[in-house]
Amino acid sequence: MTMGKVTLVSAGPGDLDLLTLKAVKALASADVVLLDDLVNPEITTLAPQARVIRVGKRGGCRSTPQAFIERLMQRYARRGLHVVRVKGGDALLFGRAGEELAALRSSGVAVEIVNGISSAFAAAAGLGVSLTHRDHCQGVIFVTAHLRDHSEPDWKALAATGMTLAIYMGMSRIESLCATLASALSNSTPAAVVQWAGFPNERRVTGTLGTIAALANSAGLGSPAIILVGDAIGEAASFNLAHGAFGAHGAEQGEAPLLRRA
Amino acid sequence: MTMGKVTLVSAGPGDLDLLTLKAVKALASADVVLLDDLVNPEITTLAPQARVIRVGKRGGCRSTPQAFIERLMQRYARRGLHVVRVKGGDALLFGRAGEELAALRSSGVAVEIVNGISSAFAAAAGLGVSLTHRDHCQGVIFVTAHLRDHSEPDWKALAATGMTLAIYMGMSRIESLCATLASALSNSTPAAVVQWAGFPNERRVTGTLGTIAALANSAGLGSPAIILVGDAIGEAASFNLAHGAFGAHGAEQGEAPLLRRA
Repeated sequence: MTMGKVTLVSAGPGDLDLLTLKAVKALASADVVLLDDLVNPEITTLAPQARVIRVGKRGGCRSTPQAFIERLMQRYARRGLHVVRVKGGDALLFGRAGEELAALRSSGVAVEIVNGISSAFAAAAGLGVSLTHRDHCQGVIFVTAHLRDHSEPDWKALAATGMTLAIYMGMSRIESLCATLASALSNSTPAAVVQWAGFPNERRVTGTLGTIAALANSAGLGSPAIILVGDAIGEAASFNLAHGAFGAHGAEQGEAPLLRRA
Repeated sequence: MTMGKVTLVSAGPGDLDLLTLKAVKALASADVVLLDDLVNPEITTLAPQARVIRVGKRGGCRSTPQAFIERLMQRYARRGLHVVRVKGGDALLFGRAGEELAALRSSGVAVEIVNGISSAFAAAAGLGVSLTHRDHCQGVIFVTAHLRDHSEPDWKALAATGMTLAIYMGMSRIESLCATLASALSNSTPAAVVQWAGFPNERRVTGTLGTIAALANSAGLGSPAIILVGDAIGEAASFNLAHGAFGAHGAEQGEAPLLRRA
């Protein structure tokens, strides 16, 4: 029997129109689709012939063990099938793809990787800002607040770089992390929270390190969300003030006359 | 006359299959396309009705001034046309989108933003590594080595974060920046250079902070390239050693039996 293969497909932030053409092609030829939690379930309409297996695991919860997912992929590939492993955002950022790639390699299964849009990019698009406006910074840091050993990133070292911060999985500790960042930067540093970035139900608030936790809280924003911090994000705030496009309770599509998600 | 609009389309790293469906739709309805240097010129086949204007400007070179590009977009949008401004990678990362968005807003032109794949993601896919393998790091820093005032980023502060570094526009100073990073990290820290990431002519070398500049130089790799540094990148190196997939002179598609770009 011919050996199958695994394609690791990055599903982007939710909107199926943000899939790449490569991702669409991989899905169309899938025999088996392994689907993560945070992926838009409608993506399975693009893989009409495939058996769909949901293998979601939210951070901190017990659900499908990683080793089981890896064994499933190996088993189906060995049967000659095309396995499409779908992860939200870009699989190469906070997706545990490293572990899955290592497992597949060690068992001799061919792997292809298809990139996607990570949700911080979608969040910035929703806010209408560059992540790295050159008037403000030299780059951007993508960091997870949810560490394996339940410790925290060194927020002060990150703040010291002067770069835009795009914080993933930080909503459960937004108050403490914003307070820590404010002590290294300033309470007035621009900040934003975008929940469900790139999904039709995307919601956003903009403020500062001093205000954003309370604003997000009073607007009822929780996980999954991206927290953006830095002067480059202030471009959104000044736009919002000028045009009234976004409020503390987020904005729907139609409220932003000069900025619409395409 | 109805006011037109501008769609800021991120073209991704070169392979047209890495365009999003949204980008393809925007191009199909474009009346005018403004095209940057590093974008695959074949993208214009997706905008058959559009007038194509090349407005490339490589870092450091004199070419189309930013203000002229902004005026062009405003002028065509005011004529009721759909202007598609195409930038490589994701326009919200190192693309000067911030300035163009501000200019369009100030003149009341509606803007839509379509995300894309930034080349560091394509570089990681080519190497077959996660940018943030959780055994190794808490995140990744996207930084440009080409600063407006010709200064350099604070490499030691960046190294101190322990994160993967994805360095854009660093090839002209790869020796000095690797030496600086090595003094803060270690000569043995894994590193890689990927030229034309995501293009059919992509080339890669892997090594360490101590060796990568010489390896890239002897392989003839120059701009445009991404320099990746950090323990997470070592997953590529160990894979390469085990399977002989990539050498100092880069790898063609067929040389990597267990890892192919999809």
